Amino acid sequence: MLTAQNKSQPRPPAFDDIVKPVVPHMQALGSFLDDQVEQFETDIRDLVRYSLQNQGKRLRPLLVFFGGWRDGVVSPELVRVAAVVELVHLATLIHDDILDDATLRHNSDTVSARYGSTAAVLVGDALFSQALALASDFPTVEVCRAVSLSTRRVCAGEIRQTFERGNADFSLEEYFRVIDLKTAELFSVSSRLGASLAGYEADFAEAAGKFSRHLGVAYQIFDDLADYLGDEDKIGKTLGTDLASGKFTLPVLVLFQRLPRGEQKLFLQRVRRGELNAAHLVELMKDYAVIAEVSSSFEQELAKAEAVLEPFAGLPPVPRLRNLSQFVLSQFQRLAVGS
Amino acid sequence: MLTAQNKSQPRPPAFDDIVKPVVPHMQALGSFLDDQVEQFETDIRDLVRYSLQNQGKRLRPLLVFFGGWRDGVVSPELVRVAAVVELVHLATLIHDDILDDATLRHNSDTVSARYGSTAAVLVGDALFSQALALASDFPTVEVCRAVSLSTRRVCAGEIRQTFERGNADFSLEEYFRVIDLKTAELFSVSSRLGASLAGYEADFAEAAGKFSRHLGVAYQIFDDLADYLGDEDKIGKTLGTDLASGKFTLPVLVLFQRLPRGEQKLFLQRVRRGELNAAHLVELMKDYAVIAEVSSSFEQELAKAEAVLEPFAGLPPVPRLRNLSQFVLSQFQRLAVGS
Repeated sequence: MLTAQNKSQPRPPAFDDIVKPVVPHMQALGSFLDDQVEQFETDIRDLVRYSLQNQGKRLRPLLVFFGGWRDGVVSPELVRVAAVVELVHLATLIHDDILDDATLRHNSDTVSARYGSTAAVLVGDALFSQALALASDFPTVEVCRAVSLSTRRVCAGEIRQTFERGNADFSLEEYFRVIDLKTAELFSVSSRLGASLAGYEADFAEAAGKFSRHLGVAYQIFDDLADYLGDEDKIGKTLGTDLASGKFTLPVLVLFQRLPRGEQKLFLQRVRRGELNAAHLVELMKDYAVIAEVSSSFEQELAKAEAVLEPFAGLPPVPRLRNLSQFVLSQFQRLAVGS
Repeated sequence: MLTAQNKSQPRPPAFDDIVKPVVPHMQALGSFLDDQVEQFETDIRDLVRYSLQNQGKRLRPLLVFFGGWRDGVVSPELVRVAAVVELVHLATLIHDDILDDATLRHNSDTVSARYGSTAAVLVGDALFSQALALASDFPTVEVCRAVSLSTRRVCAGEIRQTFERGNADFSLEEYFRVIDLKTAELFSVSSRLGASLAGYEADFAEAAGKFSRHLGVAYQIFDDLADYLGDEDKIGKTLGTDLASGKFTLPVLVLFQRLPRGEQKLFLQRVRRGELNAAHLVELMKDYAVIAEVSSSFEQELAKAEAVLEPFAGLPPVPRLRNLSQFVLSQFQRLAVGS
């Protein structure tokens, strides 16, 4: 079980500390992405520039740089592949924001809010095309293949999630499949390609990919819980939007399963009528010890992630990757314990 | 000037005659695309199967097979690259149909009408991803690079067209740039890759690409004129939809330029109020000899296409490619002379 941070334990790494060693890498990525604007046709450069302004945590590039870590060397190959995965990620965010009718992301207008959904669909396509064009600047087809297959899986996960909107019979198994596809897949390919392009052996590249797959699942569980327990100001969006849009994520699926059979129908009715806000749901989750079960799922994934790296503990990327999972753990703990 | 077909001239090739030599190629492509369904995640196979049902003329695969023609040999490489360009084309059609709110294509529900626009955006992304995954089955990055760059240009053309909706000051130069990007680009890459993968020299592959670029421009001029002069039953859509959605294509741009300055403003007002149907516009086009100028632009493009092939007249692909341009010419003539 998760407990509040004990003072005798080492302080979990802050995000800034984790990023510090890769500041030069992230700066190189920033310049590289800025330069990409000029690669697009003149007709759409303003739109592309706006689309690239979205600066999240850039977790996927971090996974590239940590997966391929070699004494802090900023290798042009890693910067390029980090740009590839970040462009794919940005393209999927732009398409997601259209589908969710989202108007704000990181406190800026979404591309669809600013330029309309038509331009947003198409610029997402253009960013994805450019990602694959960059992928074909590598000497072999490895990067093209890995990125295009991953993107197909990300889309399949998103589509499956769309099909299952409003379906409370969605099983936990199906939930885990969806988040494996829509989130963990691109996490996985990022560190796998990072390790491989940095010249590490295939078995470590595979392990780095598996580590990030588990980390991605854990991260999505965190993100789904944050939709109920998060701090609205901090995450910059309204809580409970997943359920409002019919997405049954882990906390609600567990809650639903734990409700007495007689109350399940009433619960669904109240969900459909929009009568349950985030605060109501959190109360119910406490009553039925939902957060403990969600925490347990989260911890299992992180434990699997850590275990995968065990045999490679001596390699330089491993402490970096572990820092990242410790950071995700600390974020989760703050959320789950604070509630 | 275009005149009605003179009986002493050779009959222009019918589409069926042109396709006859590549029937085995097209069948191989059909099987290949059917088999692709199983490559997608189980979650989305029904949706993918439906998305692949759209059977247009498959002009881009024809350009692959003719550009790489070698005595009728059905080469697996050409079938694969034909599938790549067709998947990219289908993905763009699916996204276009969302943006245009289209509900029917080839007399079937569009993907967005059947499955909703969310699924349609995402399955378009998935088809495009799969196209690039297939492109990475070639031994070198050539196909990935060519297809991803072309797709980026197609998107740029579509975006530019979107930005210019309702803009009657759109110049002819800008119109030609848009259709070069959105249509001619994928035509061009199809025959260029066909020729290159079939082992023809780089200078012929370049020429095949240029031929198809001009053919693509000519084809789009034909398609834009058909939106006013076509047979509704035959083309299966309402005439005049381009103007209704604010797309100023060549016939209207020429008409607008030829209107006396005093009438231009009134014309735009009537367009915006939706007072001009296709029949009105065709009358105006006749009054101002618009069709002759559109025909002249069309003929110039086809002449450029033919000229590019001149130095390679002895190569097997050339008569096949010429048949295709003769077919597009005959289609255009039927339209322009019939009106």
